Formats: sequence, C-alpha cells, structure tokens
Amino acid sequence: MEDCRLEKIIKRVVEEAIVKEVMSLKLAVALITAVEEKAGEMGVAVVTAVSDASGRPVAVHCMDGAYHGSFDVALQKTYTSTAFQMSTQKLSGLCQPGGELYGLQFSNQGRVMILGGGEPLMAGDTMIGALGVSGGTAAQDSELAAYGKAVLKEVIKCL
Amino acid sequence: MEDCRLEKIIKRVVEEAIVKEVMSLKLAVALITAVEEKAGEMGVAVVTAVSDASGRPVAVHCMDGAYHGSFDVALQKTYTSTAFQMSTQKLSGLCQPGGELYGLQFSNQGRVMILGGGEPLMAGDTMIGALGVSGGTAAQDSELAAYGKAVLKEVIKCL
Amino acid sequence: MEDCRLEKIIKRVVEEAIVKEVMSLKLAVALITAVEEKAGEMGVAVVTAVSDASGRPVAVHCMDGAYHGSFDVALQKTYTSTAFQMSTQKLSGLCQPGGELYGLQFSNQGRVMILGGGEPLMAGDTMIGALGVSGGTAAQDSELAAYGKAVLKEVIKCL
Amino acid sequence: MEDCRLEKIIKRVVEEAIVKEVMSLKLAVALITAVEEKAGEMGVAVVTAVSDASGRPVAVHCMDGAYHGSFDVALQKTYTSTAFQMSTQKLSGLCQPGGELYGLQFSNQGRVMILGGGEPLMAGDTMIGALGVSGGTAAQDSELAAYGKAVLKEVIKCL
Repeated sequence: MEDCRLEKIIKRVVEEAIVKEVMSLKLAVALITAVEEKAGEMGVAVVTAVSDASGRPVAVHCMDGAYHGSFDVALQKTYTSTAFQMSTQKLSGLCQPGGELYGLQFSNQGRVMILGGGEPLMAGDTMIGALGVSGGTAAQDSELAAYGKAVLKEVIKCL
Repeated sequence: MEDCRLEKIIKRVVEEAIVKEVMSLKLAVALITAVEEKAGEMGVAVVTAVSDASGRPVAVHCMDGAYHGSFDVALQKTYTSTAFQMSTQKLSGLCQPGGELYGLQFSNQGRVMILGGGEPLMAGDTMIGALGVSGGTAAQDSELAAYGKAVLKEVIKCL
Repeated sequence: MEDCRLEKIIKRVVEEAIVKEVMSLKLAVALITAVEEKAGEMGVAVVTAVSDASGRPVAVHCMDGAYHGSFDVALQKTYTSTAFQMSTQKLSGLCQPGGELYGLQFSNQGRVMILGGGEPLMAGDTMIGALGVSGGTAAQDSELAAYGKAVLKEVIKCL
Repeated sequence: MEDCRLEKIIKRVVEEAIVKEVMSLKLAVALITAVEEKAGEMGVAVVTAVSDASGRPVAVHCMDGAYHGSFDVALQKTYTSTAFQMSTQKLSGLCQPGGELYGLQFSNQGRVMILGGGEPLMAGDTMIGALGVSGGTAAQDSELAAYGKAVLKEVIKCL
C-alpha cells in the first residue's frame, strides 16, 4: 500500500474519531428533543440545556409553561457537570453540610448548581459536553437527565 | 344558527387570535431554524435566540463554529428589543455619545445590547417576543434579524 | 509495509491532528516565559495569561511589581480573544463610539476587554487558545502579545 | 572594620530579612512546580494557585485534565487562607451549620472557600502569601497544600 493512500485512510479514521467527540448543534437539539418527549410523557414542562465540554451552552429550549427561573438553573447544571465531571445529583450528596465537598456550591461566581438534573455526556472515556434539565422535582429532573445520558448513543446513531 | 354551534365558532376564532400572541417553543425553534438556513446561505455561523415579550429566553441555538461570546450577546439583544420595544440597530443610533439615549446601554445590570441584530416580534400591534442574532458583522446580524421578523407570519402559518 | 513504520506514520498523523489543537500547561508556561523575557528586555512588568480555545485559563503569571489590577485584565483579554476570535487591539478599533461593534464591550457580564494585548493563538486554521498580556501601555501590551503569537510555533518546537 | 565591608554585611542581612517576606513570581512558580510533582505521584490533576499576603494571585497553573471548575476554587482558597490566616480545612470545621463561624462562607462577595486545600504560607511569624490546591478529593487537596507549606523553606533555599 502506498504511503500516500495509507495516510489518507488514517486521516479519515482519526477525523471520524475526533468528530464524535465534539458537541454539535444538531446533536444537542436531537438530544433535547428526546428529553422533551420523555418529559411530555411524564407530564412535566422543563428547560433543557446542552453544553460542550467546557460548559459553553450549545442549545437551550424552554417547554411551554416551564418555570422561567429554570433557564438559569439548567445552564448552571450543564456548567457544573462539566466543571467537576460528575452528575449534579452526585455532587449534591457531597455538598450537604458536613459532607466532603460542603462549600463547593459557593464557588465559581454562583455558577455551581447542586440540584439533580445535570449529567456529563461521555463518548467513551471523553466528556463531550453536559445535559442540564430543570423544571420538575429534583427526582424528575434527575430521571430526565439520566434518560438523556442513556439515549445519547442512540441519538448520535440517528443523526 | 344554534347557540351551541355559534359558541364553538367564536371560541375557535378567539383561540386562534390569542394563540398567535404567545411565543411557544415550537414557534421559537421554527423561527430560529429559518434564520439559520438564511445564515447558512450567507456563509456565517450565528447564535440565534428567541424570547417572549418579557425578554425571557424561550430557545437559543449556537451554530457550529459560532463565536462563543455570541451566546450572551444574542440573549442581550432579545432582552433589549423587548425592554425598549425597538430594534437594537435603531437603539444603537440613539445611544452613541452625544445621542438622545446615551447612557441607556449601562442600565439593567448589563443586559442592554446596542449592536444591531435584535428585533421585537409583532403579531399585529402586539409584541409577542423578540429575536436576537449574533455572530456575523453588525450588518449581517441586522439583516438576519430583519429577515426573521419578516418571515414570522409565514413561519406561524407553517406550524 | 512493516508494522513499525506504519505505527510511526499513524503516530505522526494523529499527533498532527490532535496535539496541535490542544493547549497544554507545558506549552502555556513556555509561552508565558518567552513573553516575560521580552517584557524584561522592554523594562516592563506584566501579567501574562494563556487560555484554551474556550477562554478557560490554563496558566497566569504576575511578574514582580506588576499592577495587581492587571490580573483580571489579562484574563479578560484571553477570554475576549477566544470569544470573538480576533486580537483585542483589532476589536478595540471596532468598539469605539460610532464604530461597527460599539456596545460589544458591555456584553458577556463584564468579561470583554477591548484594550490591546490579547491575541488568539492559532495552530494552522485552528484556534488552540489565547494569550493575554497586561501591565504596560496599550502599545507595549499589544507588542508583547503579538510577540507571543509570533514565537508560538518556535515555542511548540522546543517543548 | 571598613565602611565598605560593613555596608555589604548590612545589605546582605537586610536583603535576607526582606526577601523572605515577599512572594515573588519565581518562588510562586517553584512552589507550584513542587506541588505538581507531588500531585503527579499521587495520580491527580490539580489547579495550584499562589497568592501574596493580600490574597492577590501571583501565579496559577492548571495541570492537563484538571477540572475546569477548579481554577476559581484554587484562587478562592488562597484568598480565604490569607483573609482569615488559617487553612481552609480548619475554617471548614468552624463554618459548618451550628459552628462558631457559620455564615462566614457567604461573606466577601463570594470569594470565601471552606474546602480543604488552602494554606497560609509563613516565613517565621510573617504570612507571605497562601497556597491553594483544587482538583482532587478534599483530603488530597489538603494533603497537597500541607505538603507545599512544609517544603516552602526548602524551595526558597533552592531559588
């Protein structure tokens, strides 16, 4: 096999590998739509945000009737999930008074949110972004975020 | 005509009239999609936000490759357009040093944006929200926001 | 083709694709050191910051005697350079009263800085981060940032 | 004794006395490097900040792969350690609900951090700055900060 041809093949493989690790608008909206369908079934109106791996928002949707205070909360959940690479539900347990990370919720100029509903989004071992859901109870938000995380692979396939 | 039938007709007409005056997620996303198609034709990657009449964000999309600083700018443009019920392009002229409204850009806790690209969205005489576009030149952003405002009626019909 | 040779080719391609597009602490500190040497020659004490492509700080150094107000300014310069993908010196010209982007300096919750001294750092066509220098005159800061941008390739080679 | 020789002796004694009480960039970076080596051995990626005695940052380094939320946390730890002249681990115990200083974590415009990992840096009886480490568990951060505090004297000698 010629070096030149080989190089082209490798380049394509590498690019495919890298592309998968980037949060696109198309993927963000598809994931939000999946979460909103689930929320509709549960009878709750939520704000859903998707960020890239740096916590930068890529897309945010507010379902009709969602609390308007949930817009910032959903964004904070994506920021927090990427900033500390764990779900906000897990972080919540660690940040309770007396807990190992009590105090972390007062950092990062008010952008940390320790209510459940935020999940880092992984492509294999790589964090490609985060999902933040807000508007239901903490349990509902956590359920919806976990659902979004679980269907990510399927959503990527259908793009 | 029977009372019952008449009531139904009136109800339908009134609902249609009212529904048109509310910014829904469906309308916001449809409008954003229309603006993004236009932006694609123009070869520019933008952040597009739609708010309700109170300036509260309903949906925000960041096209792949858009400036990450444009997220806040697009939101500020929708806020500003509803707050003062005019396009941010028009407001920009009034806020220049020496202008009639110079100083207004420092109000509202930093949420005012006087760069072109924000337009109030009208349903007849009623403001139902605003559109904010950021990521191109001021001229491109203004063109895209004006385009979104112009096609609003058509977009509503196709929902 | 021998496996060993193949492996080398793959490694080179992958490194070109990936390594160049990531800001590492090692690269950030080496670049800061180069800027500080130049600043020393010019007889000015500066704060130098390097961020990744999202504007997230990777390393910040304050030379002895630098203005303590320059710490935030240097960080804002890196944030701004990545947020709008241009030097803060160029942005400064556009943001003057009457200019095309007048008003942009009031966006992004006060993180925008339009004083010269911020430069996006490019690896080919890809922005891998930004450099922010603050502490001298605007001209000195701009000169130092441009110097850092110019020697980036050389600094990467010497890592 | 000649004047000239006397002057030299006095100068040396004074310099030794003064140098020890000032946080220089050189010392800050040397201390950060020592902490990073230890962190590498422990297999954890951290953000390490060193401030002067006023809590003003002198240098900050983010190890590759560190949580991006740790940048602010490390800075807050140096601020807090100098502001109240104790380790953030000690302060944490005092700030728990019901504790003697509960409430202090909401002061100083959000700059107080009560997670372990911050240590005042002493030269004899004089506080010359603080060290803030963030990115591991609270226990790991505290261990690294204590390590940095312990090796300070050695690091100063090797400058």
